[in-house]
Amino acid sequence: MMTLDSDDTVAVLAHDRFPDRAKTAVGVLRYADYDVTAVIDRARAGESVADHLPGVPDAPIVGEMADALATGDPDALLIGIAPIGGGFDDSWRPDVRAAIESGCDVIAGLHYFLADDEAFATLAADHGVDLIDVRRPPDDLTVSEGRAGDADVEVVMTVGTDCSTGKMTTTLELVAAARERGIDAGFVPTGQTGIMIAGWGVPVDRVIADFAAGAVERMLRDAAPDHDVLFVEGQGAIVHPAYSGVTCSLLHGAMPDSLVLTHSAGRETIHGYEDFPIRPIGEYADLYESLAAAVAPAPVAAGTIDTRSIDGDDAAREAIESYADAVGAPATDPVRFDADEILDALL
Amino acid sequence: MMTLDSDDTVAVLAHDRFPDRAKTAVGVLRYADYDVTAVIDRARAGESVADHLPGVPDAPIVGEMADALATGDPDALLIGIAPIGGGFDDSWRPDVRAAIESGCDVIAGLHYFLADDEAFATLAADHGVDLIDVRRPPDDLTVSEGRAGDADVEVVMTVGTDCSTGKMTTTLELVAAARERGIDAGFVPTGQTGIMIAGWGVPVDRVIADFAAGAVERMLRDAAPDHDVLFVEGQGAIVHPAYSGVTCSLLHGAMPDSLVLTHSAGRETIHGYEDFPIRPIGEYADLYESLAAAVAPAPVAAGTIDTRSIDGDDAAREAIESYADAVGAPATDPVRFDADEILDALL
Repeated sequence: MMTLDSDDTVAVLAHDRFPDRAKTAVGVLRYADYDVTAVIDRARAGESVADHLPGVPDAPIVGEMADALATGDPDALLIGIAPIGGGFDDSWRPDVRAAIESGCDVIAGLHYFLADDEAFATLAADHGVDLIDVRRPPDDLTVSEGRAGDADVEVVMTVGTDCSTGKMTTTLELVAAARERGIDAGFVPTGQTGIMIAGWGVPVDRVIADFAAGAVERMLRDAAPDHDVLFVEGQGAIVHPAYSGVTCSLLHGAMPDSLVLTHSAGRETIHGYEDFPIRPIGEYADLYESLAAAVAPAPVAAGTIDTRSIDGDDAAREAIESYADAVGAPATDPVRFDADEILDALL
Repeated sequence: MMTLDSDDTVAVLAHDRFPDRAKTAVGVLRYADYDVTAVIDRARAGESVADHLPGVPDAPIVGEMADALATGDPDALLIGIAPIGGGFDDSWRPDVRAAIESGCDVIAGLHYFLADDEAFATLAADHGVDLIDVRRPPDDLTVSEGRAGDADVEVVMTVGTDCSTGKMTTTLELVAAARERGIDAGFVPTGQTGIMIAGWGVPVDRVIADFAAGAVERMLRDAAPDHDVLFVEGQGAIVHPAYSGVTCSLLHGAMPDSLVLTHSAGRETIHGYEDFPIRPIGEYADLYESLAAAVAPAPVAAGTIDTRSIDGDDAAREAIESYADAVGAPATDPVRFDADEILDALL
């Protein structure tokens, strides 16, 4: 399992895609505890992160790994983009090679595993560096023991009405808001972007189905001793035609104390499964609560809604209020406004 | 993927465990369409299946594979027992070797994969036979497309209050009862014993979590053209601390038309998770129905209860009546009495 600590430094590869199509790179810049020394994007070499992402620690944008090595001293190269299909783009090969040859670890969340690339594997062995594929789960996972509830920590988990409703973002914004209040809050990542931001974690959707609950249970028990509150990144949706099993494993494996229901304003059907309508919001809250109750009760204590599609803050506020009514709990848009608005309802 | 057809014949290895600790061997004898030429159990050599299992097609019990080859002409050797931990017992090695050398395929549902045993793999290659490990899922699975509901077939699925509540047995007894009525019924297996009985199938609990719904969807779509009704073997329970994710994937991947709720009489806590009580029966029916409704509605139209622990048929009938009241649908014990009793409620 990868671990990146707050005193580590990374260069982030995002060729041709920074910032709009570089979700991982932007997530790392915005939320990671470790420092980014440079973003590598040949299409924007010479610009800087601050030109594109106000409010995020600045870093130079350089054209290749050699320049990143010349301008900083990264411990690792992190692949911050994922083309459709999760393949490795051969035009990135010189950057990865330069990283390995200069003693940097390489961290990727692609379907294509760097460690299975013979040329990279040989070079990495020669230079004593690690190739870390965060989508590859550890091979010693087991079934859940049903013991997550015993951990001496408050656990908040995000759930959703669909995939891509802002579960990771909500979770990270809640961690930041809690820390701002001086609360010792930890983030439990469950997907590859979250894992790269956190610097540790298990991709629960890639685990053998019988071990999915056990994987999140293990993460919780590992993280619990270091924090007073843990915010667990949810996945999928409990009535998603393809991914509901992962959602259910997370709910029962993590045994959270409370839930945050996330939604995307204006979405009417399940993304990619357009025959399946989004159900009335209150139905989701009831379903998540009933399903949790039989194992470890957890109320839907707050909601978040992604209002990007709504023009104007007043209209967004109206959408939030109507969403809060439907959820039956306080709600916010944690990006447009502030996650702090719902923290009292959760802690 | 393994396929065994009704004109295939097998010898079934069950050393020292037939019949009481040989669940797979007994399941195959009782339910499989293909013929068993012999059971191999060194502790009962010279006896016969009929001595132990009335009402099942008879077969000789022999001491080793060589005797099975001398008394019949099996196409395959099937490992019909699974020691705790799913290991391979080295005392079975001569039987497996004899099978391979005589041109038999070998079929096993162990955690230990025969195909990864170098000695067996080499021998099998030399003799042109297959080593079939049914716990190894196919490597070309994908996410569900949410299309199981489009298949032109009636689908009935078993669900449960816990693991080991008789889901496989109920499913197989329903298939038998339907066929007795002249209905073209098919069995969709989802666990290793069911797969060995059916001669095909994918072990859904061993699949990558994201692909679990897709695995059962694929099985349904493969089997639908050949049958009018499919009975899908369920797994786990929707509020099981460890296995609920698999249950949820099956429910949404298979999109059944109706559900059969299975229970074990007298069980008060989740087996192996004794801190978690079995909930009131009606709660399970409500949960399964609510969860199904948001993707593809399916009523709990019948129940089955394993009354083995109850002495006397009258007391068992009373337990069944009270269970039927709790489920809100007709119920039976399909082994003690007859699955036919609930068929009208399902079809």
